[in-house]
Amino acid sequence: MENERPLFFQVMAYADQSDQDVISMVSGSPDWEAPAVLRDGLREYAGGEPSTFQYQPSEGLTKLRAEIAERRGVDMERVVVTNGGAEANYLAMAAAMERKRGDEVLLTDPVYPYYPQKATMLDGTPRYVPVAEDGSLDPARVREAASEDTAMIVVSTPNNPTGAVYDEATMRELVAIAEDVDALLISDEVYDHFDYSGTFTSALSIDSAHRIVTNSFSKSLAITGFRVGYTVLPEQLVDDVKTRHMLVNVAGSRPAQYAVLQALQETGTEYYRKNRERMQARIEAFTRGLDRAGAEYTTPEGGFYVLARFPDFPGTLANVEQLIDDTGVAGMPGEAFGGAREEWLRFALLSPRAEEAADRLGEYFA
Amino acid sequence: MENERPLFFQVMAYADQSDQDVISMVSGSPDWEAPAVLRDGLREYAGGEPSTFQYQPSEGLTKLRAEIAERRGVDMERVVVTNGGAEANYLAMAAAMERKRGDEVLLTDPVYPYYPQKATMLDGTPRYVPVAEDGSLDPARVREAASEDTAMIVVSTPNNPTGAVYDEATMRELVAIAEDVDALLISDEVYDHFDYSGTFTSALSIDSAHRIVTNSFSKSLAITGFRVGYTVLPEQLVDDVKTRHMLVNVAGSRPAQYAVLQALQETGTEYYRKNRERMQARIEAFTRGLDRAGAEYTTPEGGFYVLARFPDFPGTLANVEQLIDDTGVAGMPGEAFGGAREEWLRFALLSPRAEEAADRLGEYFA
Repeated sequence: MENERPLFFQVMAYADQSDQDVISMVSGSPDWEAPAVLRDGLREYAGGEPSTFQYQPSEGLTKLRAEIAERRGVDMERVVVTNGGAEANYLAMAAAMERKRGDEVLLTDPVYPYYPQKATMLDGTPRYVPVAEDGSLDPARVREAASEDTAMIVVSTPNNPTGAVYDEATMRELVAIAEDVDALLISDEVYDHFDYSGTFTSALSIDSAHRIVTNSFSKSLAITGFRVGYTVLPEQLVDDVKTRHMLVNVAGSRPAQYAVLQALQETGTEYYRKNRERMQARIEAFTRGLDRAGAEYTTPEGGFYVLARFPDFPGTLANVEQLIDDTGVAGMPGEAFGGAREEWLRFALLSPRAEEAADRLGEYFA
Repeated sequence: MENERPLFFQVMAYADQSDQDVISMVSGSPDWEAPAVLRDGLREYAGGEPSTFQYQPSEGLTKLRAEIAERRGVDMERVVVTNGGAEANYLAMAAAMERKRGDEVLLTDPVYPYYPQKATMLDGTPRYVPVAEDGSLDPARVREAASEDTAMIVVSTPNNPTGAVYDEATMRELVAIAEDVDALLISDEVYDHFDYSGTFTSALSIDSAHRIVTNSFSKSLAITGFRVGYTVLPEQLVDDVKTRHMLVNVAGSRPAQYAVLQALQETGTEYYRKNRERMQARIEAFTRGLDRAGAEYTTPEGGFYVLARFPDFPGTLANVEQLIDDTGVAGMPGEAFGGAREEWLRFALLSPRAEEAADRLGEYFA
């Protein structure tokens, strides 16, 4: 398995030291504003009593858990606030391994590379299910691969890197498969506010003791640096997950959780809608440029990323670096995301200059 | 092994619902002010550019790592900023297990209960070395217990719960033992600013590839809720630890790290000295009361805690609850810290009412 971290950092470093004016489309960090009330929340926190600077409950600020629970329509006891989506996924995958119902971790190819890396760290064995060219996942392929060795199925929807959004039938079948082989479905839904298809279905909407949902506020509130995420767990896993969370981190960071709580309570739907529409406009502009470049690409149904394939230009690190040199556009090599997209490049549309980037690519490949 | 968490929370919950005016001496949270510049740092951060709200380097804000490295006199590459001391200890212990040089985890008895719990989570086997009545650790006992099965020796100095500070000879011998059996010494030094003996010696002062130091700003800056800690690693372990940190947490929380950086840069020694002297005054007042109560106790050489034993009053949860009922003083049962102090109670001197608490105990046991 390729390791995203070195590749990611290699690309960033290469772009940084380029003489070119580089449009960076590498990282998954929003380039827009967090809600103003989040800033206010942080300022308000800064003026609190000494006791408010001390330990909060391990599972997260009580009001934040309550707010999340109410929004997701679940019992608060099933919510654990984590140090970002990363810890939520780590805890969920560890809980699945601890059930000792096999050690296979079913993943899609292409894949978000942290999943197989976490699986390996937890002594799991990644096994890949290919997705269709358009990124959609045929649950029948998952069922074929699932067995009594399956500890968990890990998916992200909206997907990174394909941009696919799994519809209700797919999610329902994924949960059913997890139940049938006594595994867990882990559904990573950090891009849930960026569904352009209208078909996004949270795994939470399918009642089962065999699914875990992970999420974070990194993308929805434009605060990837704050590290506030959460997981919603089946009742029987809550204690194990809380214990591991306690032993690894004690708790997440309180100023960040406090600010997120204020932002959640006071941010209207308008904020989320504007961010979503901005992304849609960028996707449109960027893919128009890809058309001019003669590229194949997947139009994302959700999330931040466009996968594109240019004629005779496979998605290697060498080609990514050449593209930086020749066009000043930095993307991620497809080979970072598994074997299935080695020919492709991933562009994160997190720059106001997405259209300009597409123009440059259009010129270069025309 | 007793699990501190339930006991700790049971005591807190019992104290909270008491009709008594309870003086809480249970938790390790400072009751004094964080430096004012830390609050300013948080406010300043709140007004930053959107990009400053996004991912920071996984190993921590570069300036914060540089500041820590300079203060500790080590190469910056060896510093990883963590989500509090808890994650630092978790990462250090995981790194020791991953060396696959045995699975025994040598601990002291009494012990900070998270160590054996972390060891067990990491498939290590805790093994206990008793300390002397005054809390001092005879390294000869550690050498007796150490073998090729030893993965690591984990100590805290100044110690929680005994208050012992290990002198240079002890630290030097602990490092030598780790070297001799090809294990790691993990030295948890979160109370390093609270040395009243003048004999505190950081394991960092003994050059070796066999020791890891963990620390945090929770106690020194009175911000247990912020979750900013760090570990200083031997060069050959840096990559493994960074990888696990990345896969578990991606990074710590950026607003908290930013505020800590400001506080570190602008807080004079006066702040630390005042907090240390406040604790010394409390220790004096509290132990005077214990004298009146006819209690045995250890006068801490460092840290926040006093262990005390009252005649015919073992350190069980039941007795702790009775003490809350009868005196309104809440301590921790000694049984939470292993077998060696089951007769004792631990009092955290983190209340301005420490002297009043001692008076109450004096009256009750007199």
